[in-house]
Amino acid sequence: MSYQPIGIFDSGVGGLTVLKEVSRILPSENIIYLGDTARVPYGIRSAETVTRYSFECTEFLLRQDIKLLIVACNTVSAISLKEIREKVSIPVIGVIEPGARAAVNSTKNRRIGIIGTEATIKSSAYLKAIKALDKDIEVFGLPCPLFVPLVEEGWTDGIIARLVVEKYLKDMMYRGVDTLVLGCTHYPLLKGVIQDVMNKVCLVDSAIETAKVVRDILEEQRAKSKEQRAGDQGRLKFYVTDSTEKFVNVGERFLGKRIDDIEKINLGR
Amino acid sequence: MSYQPIGIFDSGVGGLTVLKEVSRILPSENIIYLGDTARVPYGIRSAETVTRYSFECTEFLLRQDIKLLIVACNTVSAISLKEIREKVSIPVIGVIEPGARAAVNSTKNRRIGIIGTEATIKSSAYLKAIKALDKDIEVFGLPCPLFVPLVEEGWTDGIIARLVVEKYLKDMMYRGVDTLVLGCTHYPLLKGVIQDVMNKVCLVDSAIETAKVVRDILEEQRAKSKEQRAGDQGRLKFYVTDSTEKFVNVGERFLGKRIDDIEKINLGR
Repeated sequence: MSYQPIGIFDSGVGGLTVLKEVSRILPSENIIYLGDTARVPYGIRSAETVTRYSFECTEFLLRQDIKLLIVACNTVSAISLKEIREKVSIPVIGVIEPGARAAVNSTKNRRIGIIGTEATIKSSAYLKAIKALDKDIEVFGLPCPLFVPLVEEGWTDGIIARLVVEKYLKDMMYRGVDTLVLGCTHYPLLKGVIQDVMNKVCLVDSAIETAKVVRDILEEQRAKSKEQRAGDQGRLKFYVTDSTEKFVNVGERFLGKRIDDIEKINLGR
Repeated sequence: MSYQPIGIFDSGVGGLTVLKEVSRILPSENIIYLGDTARVPYGIRSAETVTRYSFECTEFLLRQDIKLLIVACNTVSAISLKEIREKVSIPVIGVIEPGARAAVNSTKNRRIGIIGTEATIKSSAYLKAIKALDKDIEVFGLPCPLFVPLVEEGWTDGIIARLVVEKYLKDMMYRGVDTLVLGCTHYPLLKGVIQDVMNKVCLVDSAIETAKVVRDILEEQRAKSKEQRAGDQGRLKFYVTDSTEKFVNVGERFLGKRIDDIEKINLGR
């Protein structure tokens, strides 16, 4: 089992920040990434449609004989994680619960901010996950619609990023949160600017927290891939449902390395 | 026939810039606007899907007994205008041809810039429309992905808008275009900043150009609505396929007036 790959899917390119962290702390794992780029973004679709799409992604990855599934998509994690877990026999990790747990562990003044896409904030998924752990914590959600296009353009430092981050997060500062959850898989690329602007606040990077949970589960199940030789790197394989070109261009910035082994597939009808 | 309404549809809120101009130069017309907000954006979908959606919008508006149809959506104008025209017996106006024609009439140095969404620029629809009128004109297309979220956030003046516009349009200035087409229905809200940055360039606002074509056709067909009394305003009626709330919030900024008469409907399955 240990040599089986880990499967990760997202509606697009964002989940690559999760892949990056998993690959960093578990470098010898083989990982298969599926980006359903033909149908991105999921956040604007009905719960029924999101569930159907996520089943199609899950089934595709199960056919690749994965040992663990990471749902690196906030929308799916919020809407259909439970239904996916009921359908499959391998461990399924979403991105919301690990981030929520890390935020609860981090906060001292019990005031947590959540930033994400409009769909994620509207779903109250982080709010519910945090309240389930500690109902007395105050949670402030804020959608930041310009962050995703900023990141996709690669404008993650410089004056424009700085001003946009300041404009959105002014309100969070007034609210006195001591912990801020980056509740969108694109946002870790803006971490530097966000930390500069909110320099006394603890940033929770859901990608890192998700990767830690994956490591713990694989250790517990003794399912970690073993290095053949010290320093051996696992294989990274990518599938997308729309053109590979844009995914590679934007994705290499997310991943910080080359994307070589990529293939276009069809999902659904 | 003259009291029948004009029908306008778009995938979302952007077409309201066209409605605003039509209503400004033809104030006594009754107008029905349909925003297919549950399925926005069309630009990321296949041509087949865009055509199917646009037929559904067209059929809905035909049932409201419209006398003229405006396709205020760049994606549909680029992909399925011809097929819609073949299906219906009333005049059908898209947003690309009027903008292209105005740009060709405006340019002196025969160098035209087009800005729009990635989907519009990739479709080369403006390039083809301009080349069809004058094949010797040089056309430079540039996608500006941050403009739509800037406009939807209402950040249409101030330092952030200015810096984002400068960053995108630097390249257009080097190319020495004397005419720039705002090839996205959201962009007229950034016209002030864009004109400041490119102060010697003639901006072509597709919304205004489309409205002029509509006026000319109604005059030619003697189908203009007649005022009962001087200053009578036509009725504006709105339909959307997703929640009315966000549409009203953002849409009132686009329109510069209240949106009162709005209804949610279902299209397609």
